[in-house]
Amino acid sequence: MVNEDSVYGGLLVDDAHWAFGEAASIEPGTHGDDPLAGMDTRVPDGVDARVLGAYALALGDDALVFAHRLSEWCSRAPDLEEDIALANISLDLLGQARYLLARAAAADPALVPVLPEGSPVPDEDRLAFFRDDAAFCNVHLAELPNGDFAEAIVRILLFSTWRLALFQHLRTSRDPVLAAVAAKGVNELAYHRDFAGQWFVRLAQGTEESRRRLHSALETRWPFHEELFAEASLDLGAAEAGVGVAPSELRAEVDAVWAELFAAAEVDPPEAAPLRGRGGRDGVHTEALSRMLAEMQSVARAHPMGSW
Amino acid sequence: MVNEDSVYGGLLVDDAHWAFGEAASIEPGTHGDDPLAGMDTRVPDGVDARVLGAYALALGDDALVFAHRLSEWCSRAPDLEEDIALANISLDLLGQARYLLARAAAADPALVPVLPEGSPVPDEDRLAFFRDDAAFCNVHLAELPNGDFAEAIVRILLFSTWRLALFQHLRTSRDPVLAAVAAKGVNELAYHRDFAGQWFVRLAQGTEESRRRLHSALETRWPFHEELFAEASLDLGAAEAGVGVAPSELRAEVDAVWAELFAAAEVDPPEAAPLRGRGGRDGVHTEALSRMLAEMQSVARAHPMGSW
Repeated sequence: MVNEDSVYGGLLVDDAHWAFGEAASIEPGTHGDDPLAGMDTRVPDGVDARVLGAYALALGDDALVFAHRLSEWCSRAPDLEEDIALANISLDLLGQARYLLARAAAADPALVPVLPEGSPVPDEDRLAFFRDDAAFCNVHLAELPNGDFAEAIVRILLFSTWRLALFQHLRTSRDPVLAAVAAKGVNELAYHRDFAGQWFVRLAQGTEESRRRLHSALETRWPFHEELFAEASLDLGAAEAGVGVAPSELRAEVDAVWAELFAAAEVDPPEAAPLRGRGGRDGVHTEALSRMLAEMQSVARAHPMGSW
Repeated sequence: MVNEDSVYGGLLVDDAHWAFGEAASIEPGTHGDDPLAGMDTRVPDGVDARVLGAYALALGDDALVFAHRLSEWCSRAPDLEEDIALANISLDLLGQARYLLARAAAADPALVPVLPEGSPVPDEDRLAFFRDDAAFCNVHLAELPNGDFAEAIVRILLFSTWRLALFQHLRTSRDPVLAAVAAKGVNELAYHRDFAGQWFVRLAQGTEESRRRLHSALETRWPFHEELFAEASLDLGAAEAGVGVAPSELRAEVDAVWAELFAAAEVDPPEAAPLRGRGGRDGVHTEALSRMLAEMQSVARAHPMGSW
């Protein structure tokens, strides 16, 4: 092959971007950028900071916990294409989580676990890695252990259909940070719903086995749909303050999408009864969450000073 | 919050993109898009298809195997920001692997493992999931088990500095597919090198512990640097045919970058002697690869008909 670059040419151009001088000036032991840098993080007038903080935390926990479940699929999907798609979805949600946890911490610093003085661990990481399960507010749908690929598809579809409707409303939140996170998130969630919707139809119209597995996933996961619309005081408070959305407001939109999905896939809606009772928004969780957190938090907790 | 959308408005707009009609028409049991769709996959005149196939496979294996190692970091990085960065790097490499394995299969179909007739598993997945370790041609650097975060940084830096130099040359490959993969890849690899380079400097100038760990990672990983420039017949054949790059051609560029890195980080180049002998390009691997493949390939091998 003819080398059309000079020996160092290509590299030197990139090195401007590489910016060693800048990297070298980062102070030892500190972490990277504040995810909310440049944003107006003041709590809007008349909004209770604790209400805003708790709401941002709950939406962040939904994304963080489900992102972790999806990351467990890494290299375990049926093929490379789906492996890449599931990893992308996980990564989008992890990004949403990072912004939302940072927003929660900025709104209500009392939420953030206290670490030894001098620890450089940023607030969003303290929230992710140093809370116990009872302090997590994610819905149960996010924390359930993984099943087979059909289960992943049904769960992504339940989650993204609901969260997309939620984020579409949230774009007009009185909190500019939540509005910005939602505006970015709707594009991501539309892709997630699209991906899972296409697989939903494909599995339904595939082989006898794929149809059997899809039905089984629907029967086991559908009962967790109800919790997404539960009138938890946390969501209602945020909706009243104009920063959040009342869960019941999303019901008709989400139901309409599912009706379209069932029709396109020629699948009957599942008959499994919805689960009722106290849910994740109240800090009540399944055993699966504490096992997941034990794994997820082990590295960070071993280094609370984050200083090596 | 005021709902400024009509109840279904936002969703219906997105549904055009969702395209149920289209999804429903995908044939049962088939997989998604051909990654090389729309590309001219004919083997260039005068090029031995086996030489091109073996070369694309080797570059694909490097990316596939290292992507898997990086995916094992999922949710285990020191914080959310690094978790997201490592996952992004893994995902970029997985994407490169998918194109390169598809290119290998299209150039030399004899490389592709035979599955039972009627199996819909696409060629790139057969190459990823149905070959044994001796058929993998990745360099050893890609397959080594993970160490600590400093080890990950050193390994990403060794790998991306070399691969970026390689892809910069490969943009003028006589094979249009390799040229296109390289053109897309240089941006990704420049980011990987940038990320790892900044951490390299930060760890070097951080605490006593971070410096100790960085030195230890350098001492254990540096011996694997030499293999990247070994004159394997596979690479030399591709270079002679004008589709690949002779490894020795990259040496000066890569050394120059590392000299700059050592200077910026104020770190002495490691003294560990390079490993010599037969390497991954000849199908000789460490034990770690077979263990990794056993895990990576288990799901796909359980479903060789890929039909549910």
